[in-house]
Amino acid sequence: MTPFERRAREAQTRLADRGDDLLALFPSRNLFYATGFAEEPGERHLFFLLPATGDPVFFVPELYEEQVREASRVDDVRTWADDEDPTERLRAVVGEFDVGRGRVLVDDTMWARFTQDLRDVLPDASFGLASEVLAPLRRRKDDAELDAIRRASRIADRVVDDVRALGSDAVGMTEAELAREIERRLVAAGGDGLSFETIVGSGPNGAKPHHGSGDRIVEAGDPVVLDFGTRVDEYPSDQTRTVVFGGDPSAAFCEVHAVVREAQAAAVAAVEPGARAGDVDAAAREVIEAAGYGDRFIHRTGHGVGLDVHEEPYIVAGGGVELEPGMVFSVEPGVYVPGEFGVRIEDLVVVTDDGCERLNESERGWASPAT
Amino acid sequence: MTPFERRAREAQTRLADRGDDLLALFPSRNLFYATGFAEEPGERHLFFLLPATGDPVFFVPELYEEQVREASRVDDVRTWADDEDPTERLRAVVGEFDVGRGRVLVDDTMWARFTQDLRDVLPDASFGLASEVLAPLRRRKDDAELDAIRRASRIADRVVDDVRALGSDAVGMTEAELAREIERRLVAAGGDGLSFETIVGSGPNGAKPHHGSGDRIVEAGDPVVLDFGTRVDEYPSDQTRTVVFGGDPSAAFCEVHAVVREAQAAAVAAVEPGARAGDVDAAAREVIEAAGYGDRFIHRTGHGVGLDVHEEPYIVAGGGVELEPGMVFSVEPGVYVPGEFGVRIEDLVVVTDDGCERLNESERGWASPAT
Repeated sequence: MTPFERRAREAQTRLADRGDDLLALFPSRNLFYATGFAEEPGERHLFFLLPATGDPVFFVPELYEEQVREASRVDDVRTWADDEDPTERLRAVVGEFDVGRGRVLVDDTMWARFTQDLRDVLPDASFGLASEVLAPLRRRKDDAELDAIRRASRIADRVVDDVRALGSDAVGMTEAELAREIERRLVAAGGDGLSFETIVGSGPNGAKPHHGSGDRIVEAGDPVVLDFGTRVDEYPSDQTRTVVFGGDPSAAFCEVHAVVREAQAAAVAAVEPGARAGDVDAAAREVIEAAGYGDRFIHRTGHGVGLDVHEEPYIVAGGGVELEPGMVFSVEPGVYVPGEFGVRIEDLVVVTDDGCERLNESERGWASPAT
Repeated sequence: MTPFERRAREAQTRLADRGDDLLALFPSRNLFYATGFAEEPGERHLFFLLPATGDPVFFVPELYEEQVREASRVDDVRTWADDEDPTERLRAVVGEFDVGRGRVLVDDTMWARFTQDLRDVLPDASFGLASEVLAPLRRRKDDAELDAIRRASRIADRVVDDVRALGSDAVGMTEAELAREIERRLVAAGGDGLSFETIVGSGPNGAKPHHGSGDRIVEAGDPVVLDFGTRVDEYPSDQTRTVVFGGDPSAAFCEVHAVVREAQAAAVAAVEPGARAGDVDAAAREVIEAAGYGDRFIHRTGHGVGLDVHEEPYIVAGGGVELEPGMVFSVEPGVYVPGEFGVRIEDLVVVTDDGCERLNESERGWASPAT
């Protein structure tokens, strides 16, 4: 049995235990997790329909049939052609499951146009989200998953160390040029594309936590937030360093950097089985608040990382999720001074039987060799 | 008034005319179209709420506030913090619109987890899709939109001509290497990233219409499907050529290529205002059926192209959409011989007052200079 077949069986067991009737996935990480078929969401009707008991059905556009059969072990693949009405074909296929007034769990990221169609063909059903059964499975990573995340993290570590080593050679490049250089190196090191849009936030752009990269030129002494990742076997890395390429940064920045670094270390130290997500957030937040920057730490401390770069468990203030061995998440406190600079330091960690292991080990300071 | 403000006003007029009460967008092309704020979908609650009358509200995570204010001209931006329950905050904000038993149009690509929340906070409302008001606006491109698509198409034309000129130098490269080379050239020519996953389908891989690129090595005489695109000012290109790098292809391929090229020309010739989408599809399909390959043409003839690479109008068999000046779509018949090869030839066209204009003008034959 493949890992995918095993996961689909576990999902069926959970559906049956809960009294839910049907799981309906569309192209998503959930779909890959349960079937091995990886595809981007698109405007064509493509569903994986898994009943609580019995065999699953793939409902796919004709031109996907060969790929779906190759990637998954699902035998029952129904197709619809471009000149057919997919909603009417879907009505017939879904009708075979005899859901009636039952409960259907739809993929959390399923587009409204498709959930509207499912509601149309299942007018008496009630609806929930696929994560109700899949999130508990996906939250604890198995060895193969951990291995992929580890390999992706090692690539990101190597690239951030190499980019830091550019030192004053990076001064004069635009953020976008530096981002392309990072991306080129990720692929050269064996990464499969990017796990999210590369962030190179220099000077005041670093104060916008979701700034990508732009035309601003990196100057000597500028704090630069470098947040980027790649994938290995579908699993992502996610790590952040805040560095200075050549020149001396301001004293204000040096102080903030030290505070964020301490906060990050305190949060990592708080990770152990049985601790709550909120405990980890609090450990970081207390350090930053004590230093007087509490109102500049405007986001949560971290997020789970798996097939999705952002998934459970979320490391938020008051978060009640109990940490369990096998959970992987980011620890990434930050302080943002609008108009001046930002600092964020981020590592992935995996919860172990008696604490945690950091998956990123690249240098965390701000200095570059030529500074 | 910016184009974005003008479009939001037009959407309000349409909402009011239809008796609908509220448009709810989330990060999507629709959101960019109506506000100028471009962002990828994410797991945080971020909505643009546009009532039929009165002022719109942005409901965004705290860390997005600055970016949303910079990108849009919307004054009323409400934020929620990571330690708040966004659904409860949303309930309060949505409550101000007094929707009651009214009708809400949600973004077509809104994730189920967010539509479930809107249904939760608006238990008496009925729901439809945003495209009911936005698709008619987005279907006819204005001059600025056409200009962006034209510039993106010129970049793609230049790159496919340059890649074809590699001739036998491309023999021995893997599909993935050739894809990276194409992507490097798109960016060097001024393109902004990719408009979709680059397809390099060599030999039998060309018979899978949605194959990306893999480890297969391009050999002399192999038919290779090259389907790729980039963006300019958020608007995409989309074009396909099927070429042979060095060596002689099979006679079977040469025949199929000639049939597809003729079918593509026939379909383009059928484009004019007042014609139906189905007429264009039929023009291509008739040529391919007459040549005996009808069952190998397993997809529609084309799709609209705008902010979304796939949008209305869809050029499908029997499609009743009447073509209007300003519509932009692909014309891309194909023939796929499983286990052997595929052929697809694709240009974008814009409907003009008396016919159409092709937006791609690169060479359509299969030969490369060194063949």
